[in-house]
Amino acid sequence: MSSLRSLRPLISCRRFSQPLIKRLALPNLSEARTTSSWMTRWNSTVTQDPMTGELTSLPDIEVSRLEITETNSPKQPPASSSLVFGHTFTDHMLAIPWSAVSGWGAPKIRPYAPLALAPSATVFHYAQALFEGLKAYRDSTGRITLFRPDMNMKRMNTSAARVALPTFNGDAVIELVKRLIRLDKHWIPDLPGYSLYIRPTLIGTQAALGIAPPSEALLFVICSPVGPYYPQGFKPVALYATTEYTRAAPGGIGAYKLAANYAPGVVAQKEAAKKGYVQNLWLHGPEHYITEVGTMNAFLALKHPDGVTELVCPPLDGLILPGVTRDSVLNLARDHASGKTLLEGLPESGKFVVNERPVTMGEVKQAAEDGRLVEFFGTGTAAVISPVNRIGYLGEDIQIPTGPDGMGPVSRPIWKQLVGIQVGSIPSPWSVVV
Amino acid sequence: MSSLRSLRPLISCRRFSQPLIKRLALPNLSEARTTSSWMTRWNSTVTQDPMTGELTSLPDIEVSRLEITETNSPKQPPASSSLVFGHTFTDHMLAIPWSAVSGWGAPKIRPYAPLALAPSATVFHYAQALFEGLKAYRDSTGRITLFRPDMNMKRMNTSAARVALPTFNGDAVIELVKRLIRLDKHWIPDLPGYSLYIRPTLIGTQAALGIAPPSEALLFVICSPVGPYYPQGFKPVALYATTEYTRAAPGGIGAYKLAANYAPGVVAQKEAAKKGYVQNLWLHGPEHYITEVGTMNAFLALKHPDGVTELVCPPLDGLILPGVTRDSVLNLARDHASGKTLLEGLPESGKFVVNERPVTMGEVKQAAEDGRLVEFFGTGTAAVISPVNRIGYLGEDIQIPTGPDGMGPVSRPIWKQLVGIQVGSIPSPWSVVV
Repeated sequence: MSSLRSLRPLISCRRFSQPLIKRLALPNLSEARTTSSWMTRWNSTVTQDPMTGELTSLPDIEVSRLEITETNSPKQPPASSSLVFGHTFTDHMLAIPWSAVSGWGAPKIRPYAPLALAPSATVFHYAQALFEGLKAYRDSTGRITLFRPDMNMKRMNTSAARVALPTFNGDAVIELVKRLIRLDKHWIPDLPGYSLYIRPTLIGTQAALGIAPPSEALLFVICSPVGPYYPQGFKPVALYATTEYTRAAPGGIGAYKLAANYAPGVVAQKEAAKKGYVQNLWLHGPEHYITEVGTMNAFLALKHPDGVTELVCPPLDGLILPGVTRDSVLNLARDHASGKTLLEGLPESGKFVVNERPVTMGEVKQAAEDGRLVEFFGTGTAAVISPVNRIGYLGEDIQIPTGPDGMGPVSRPIWKQLVGIQVGSIPSPWSVVV
Repeated sequence: MSSLRSLRPLISCRRFSQPLIKRLALPNLSEARTTSSWMTRWNSTVTQDPMTGELTSLPDIEVSRLEITETNSPKQPPASSSLVFGHTFTDHMLAIPWSAVSGWGAPKIRPYAPLALAPSATVFHYAQALFEGLKAYRDSTGRITLFRPDMNMKRMNTSAARVALPTFNGDAVIELVKRLIRLDKHWIPDLPGYSLYIRPTLIGTQAALGIAPPSEALLFVICSPVGPYYPQGFKPVALYATTEYTRAAPGGIGAYKLAANYAPGVVAQKEAAKKGYVQNLWLHGPEHYITEVGTMNAFLALKHPDGVTELVCPPLDGLILPGVTRDSVLNLARDHASGKTLLEGLPESGKFVVNERPVTMGEVKQAAEDGRLVEFFGTGTAAVISPVNRIGYLGEDIQIPTGPDGMGPVSRPIWKQLVGIQVGSIPSPWSVVV
């Protein structure tokens, strides 16, 4: 994938035709498991100019240009027990400037410090902003790993293209993130369930108003030590099936990890909380298709009359974020269903199927009434799996069974396998050593 | 509207019930023309805490607390002929900090300078950002006026409530903006068609990650001298009726001037440009309802078989921004239709009707084929009125008549009246003296 020729049909805007847009909207991130897919431009210095959509030979992000300035005043990491998600940041950050004139500049690892941006910077006015979230884990041997960081880099590039921010070599950023983590690795708490949350972010920094591709941008990465999402074991949550607000729509941005997807959900979450629910269950259309759970992907399990258990996940139809945890859960469940890697506790191969398919609230409600709704859960980087025990829908509550540990019979074995891989106790190509 | 009692039913979140949400989504800004409506909290120090939704007695924005620091190095305003929209800013800016603990702080007018924000500031990650745009005009006597600034402040508060940013006393901000303009009034070019573009902005500045109402925010206002949108007379534009992307959806944020509405439109505009069109005509639903034109409101005029000319504007159904120019055009057109204020050149009273109603592309296409499509135009602060001469729709071009001056017979008299009011040659309560 290093030649201009192989890139042109995929990322030149001359051929940015509708079928390709649809492919951009629905990236099959799971392909990246075994192949180097098109969104990560390995060792390429060819970039797409968001001003013109044309390929250019402006510099891509180059690890060899990294400049490191270490802090003179390192902070003392706080007691792990006092950590609140996203409130504490490590000593250093990574910053990589981009301009339409000179391409990606030299990456800099420097002391964590405020950004100075013109009040006219486009990020403040037009939400030219996107982010990723992933975690670095320290295993029992002290080894530090990232979980499928290539997936985050692919999605970050997909998000960038959706709002005309510059794309970049995802591999180079993974390597730079590793350098950053190595510098701040003493910030990863040495306790089970703790990790370092990594937040890559890309913003438009053009200092002039105007709704257009920005002439300048900044990619930066910050790191925050975090504790377990459920320090006292799983706590199932109640969802409010929301009919007053929507998270995404066809032709919109629901499939991208853009900043613009998040602020509008806060009021809806507040209103759900006032009604006694923890999060929104986002629906679509008059059929009330299930799309997402708060800021997580949605899963449910049904027991059919023939005895087969079906794990259902709404498909990547353009409304749904292609979550890394979502993809991992689907992969592990499918590997079990196909007999490739059996997970203890899941129904035996012939009695377990996995489907990405549309599912309506009507179907969920009927299954619950018939006693066939086995479980319902959300997936995401922060919580990994978040069990649901109740859904408020059109004035009624749908009750969902959960086990004594808060989980259900399908999510439990998958969660064990997934977390085992993440923390390094189960070997997997998904673990990338820092 | 100064008592707690009168505010509670309207802005307490305890009663933030669905009907009110709908009213928030569909503000009838035109009411503000004669009455002090609910979104501007005149002389009140009661604010709504976005963390809890409750009313608090934390300080609102107070003009009396204004602190002014004048620049030591004033810039030389550039030659008017060299101005590019949004690229040049005046010597000073207004900044007002807010925190959930202490409410709105002292307003500061200070030299225009970069903002220093933590990389973790929520505006960079979750698009907690919104803005307004209005202009200050200098009339032939040297008097400086703003056009309906109360409308912008009301909408800014409506936008803030939609993303759980703090609301504020809009009158106080108008007064503070006046002080800012007086300090930088020599930046308003003394040429016909030139003005000072004012950009009030509100961003979430909480320095911790987490998708929730921010604990800190910043309201700032910057000013940019701008030239006429059409320096060589009106230039009608071609629109691409867009079926691949959507701007807004029911339950979303299309009715609010949020930053999140803008970045997602850039790629769609680029693709329209590649097809030979200037802007997107945003549609909704399988019926292809017309919603907006680029970042402007949409209008069209139809001649009916009975000889009546109908000015049509899509209604504020939650998908459409309640534009100040939109509202002004509707008011002027209705005043003519009712005989209150006749505009020379428009069809006589009984032969002219104004309707806010849904209109589909099918209706537009049929009217064009029947020779009944009189004109089509966009309205917005920047261009005031932007005539359209062609719409690409499902592979065909719909041609729209325009006069030798680029305008149509309905928009021309309305534009003359509106611009006359804006620049001060026609007296109107809409003009607010700085």
